[in-house]
Amino acid sequence: MNIAVMGCGTVGGGVVEIIDNRMGENSGLRVTRILDKIFREGDNRFTSEISDITNDDTIDVVVESMGGIEPAHSFILAALNAGKHIVTSNKAVVSQYMKEFVDAANNNNVGLFLEATAGGGVPWIHNLMRVKRIDNITAFSGIINGTSNFIIDKMEREGSDFNETLKLAQEKGYAEANPSADIDGDDVKAKSMISASIAFNTLCSDEIPTSGIRNLTIEDIEAFKEMGMRVRMITRGKVEGNKYYVTVEPQVCADNTLEANTPGYFNTVSLTGETIGELKFFGAGAGALPTANAIVQDILDCKDGKRPVYDFSRTLEFDETIMDSSYLFRTKAERALPKGAIMIRPGYFEIAGKYPAEAHKIAEGLLVEDPTTFMASLQKTI
Amino acid sequence: MNIAVMGCGTVGGGVVEIIDNRMGENSGLRVTRILDKIFREGDNRFTSEISDITNDDTIDVVVESMGGIEPAHSFILAALNAGKHIVTSNKAVVSQYMKEFVDAANNNNVGLFLEATAGGGVPWIHNLMRVKRIDNITAFSGIINGTSNFIIDKMEREGSDFNETLKLAQEKGYAEANPSADIDGDDVKAKSMISASIAFNTLCSDEIPTSGIRNLTIEDIEAFKEMGMRVRMITRGKVEGNKYYVTVEPQVCADNTLEANTPGYFNTVSLTGETIGELKFFGAGAGALPTANAIVQDILDCKDGKRPVYDFSRTLEFDETIMDSSYLFRTKAERALPKGAIMIRPGYFEIAGKYPAEAHKIAEGLLVEDPTTFMASLQKTI
Repeated sequence: MNIAVMGCGTVGGGVVEIIDNRMGENSGLRVTRILDKIFREGDNRFTSEISDITNDDTIDVVVESMGGIEPAHSFILAALNAGKHIVTSNKAVVSQYMKEFVDAANNNNVGLFLEATAGGGVPWIHNLMRVKRIDNITAFSGIINGTSNFIIDKMEREGSDFNETLKLAQEKGYAEANPSADIDGDDVKAKSMISASIAFNTLCSDEIPTSGIRNLTIEDIEAFKEMGMRVRMITRGKVEGNKYYVTVEPQVCADNTLEANTPGYFNTVSLTGETIGELKFFGAGAGALPTANAIVQDILDCKDGKRPVYDFSRTLEFDETIMDSSYLFRTKAERALPKGAIMIRPGYFEIAGKYPAEAHKIAEGLLVEDPTTFMASLQKTI
Repeated sequence: MNIAVMGCGTVGGGVVEIIDNRMGENSGLRVTRILDKIFREGDNRFTSEISDITNDDTIDVVVESMGGIEPAHSFILAALNAGKHIVTSNKAVVSQYMKEFVDAANNNNVGLFLEATAGGGVPWIHNLMRVKRIDNITAFSGIINGTSNFIIDKMEREGSDFNETLKLAQEKGYAEANPSADIDGDDVKAKSMISASIAFNTLCSDEIPTSGIRNLTIEDIEAFKEMGMRVRMITRGKVEGNKYYVTVEPQVCADNTLEANTPGYFNTVSLTGETIGELKFFGAGAGALPTANAIVQDILDCKDGKRPVYDFSRTLEFDETIMDSSYLFRTKAERALPKGAIMIRPGYFEIAGKYPAEAHKIAEGLLVEDPTTFMASLQKTI
């Protein structure tokens, strides 16, 4: 099976490394083309022309690990329309063009493989689809971004402040120069859209309330600790009757949950199925080799003849009323808080029974008056 | 695909329930025969004759959920030799006859499916074999017995004593009338032998040091709590060079580990692969529907043409010296302790750098003088 890799950075480089050096000849996998702007000296597989891939009839599978929207979007479509299977780790482009990609894959009778778009090395998409062979998925949740978890965990363990820790994450290569996608929740939102679309058989809305950890302080972490809680960056998705909802925000969880005890850049992602109950998957949420491993797993499935089937035919309404929570706000804009807010400790307010979009709107209002305001949902303790 | 279920108790009954009532006609799965001593009234699929299954050419797959060694052992062989695929949840018989079953399956060109033998509803064997497509497995570990975890967690949460909690587990149907396999570690040992044989490509020795939680007291739990630790029933397997080792015993773990925070009858099982790093799988370790779900997953894989390949060709030495640990003993037989034992709190002694079989031998000696002695390995804190 001949493979082209588009984008030979951290993840794409890891794919080439695993196939070239670890899988060996007997695996039947060969990387024969690499598309990138920067060529590796002496490696004549490199090209900067997409046509060298789309016009090459010997290439069976195209790995897209470029990231970003364009040219990834048009390159993926070009490869699908040229009859190549696509394996991608690009959550941003897939969450935006999922329907278009699935249609193009179906029309060209090729596979679209998405394991590496969510959860890094955690075998999340694979197991989610596997559970669906028997069960309806009623909910999913968890930590699905390694960078934000690295930052929170580091702050918790070392008492270092947010900006200092973010800088360290950038130096270690966990966070991008522009860290917004990781710390403001957009990366989690994209992964949640993909997860929800697969879990609930409906093309997920992009109107997911999304907030991040930019305003998290070491004082917040200390306050939660005194409450027997820890904060984590959490996605939650749920279906009930003909309604579904997804929300992305920090959550203050009891310190005896698996989520609260997920360290470093690891992820813990959960699903609930009708007969299997709750399953949780823990593993590296970032890093070259774990994410590359997820891509190579997809390639091996493709080689075994597997073709993922995506079914978005279920008509569900995106309705926040199925998901009420308590929310916690740390703010100096006390007067802007709605009625019913209860001060649970100096400067920290709980508002019970709020729907997510409602709570996110309250936070927006508070942020106008106090730009340091931090909001998190509050896990109901069992 | 026509299925016979041998043993229609908790797990087998769950399989019939899922296939009859949840999967539906379109799944292509039909339970056409059920072997049990007790017949369900009005259900003419029931039989007490194995020949009704082995002689029936319309049956493709045989589920064995009888438990125990005989007649499970001879019935599985009879079914394999009759050209039927076997899906089993019976860890006791598989750990004892793994090689014989694999050979019979290979000779008859049928599949032997073992997902449900370890970890209940946790997709452990499937993901372990999947990771092996790319990585060597260097270690596995974790909680792989739901009953003992239920008892420990209940003691921790409610301060109830061991015997009282065991009785409750028996009433709830989590523990057998003879609870020894669950509380003395033999169930974990059997699951560990199966896991190690698959993970390390070698037929695992049955000389695994094995001890359980029978002597665990509420005072122990309180003592560990004050140390910032919790006890869990843990399997550990490791390979290093041409050596491997497996040990089964309670472990005192830091209270911020996923294992220490695994509640109720849930399991958390981990593996370490070369490129994927550490993966952990959490889910129901017991219960009718989760374990039945694991069996139905195997049946679906069988229907998709999958045939698990077991390779025990690696020559490894079972050598405890690759796995030194600290061990903790709570005993009144102070004088029988070896040199180097350090009292870490009244009545509790730590012996550092011990190999497992060595430590288990020390415990045996102490138990002669003080039959209430409790031993656990001590997790090195990070």
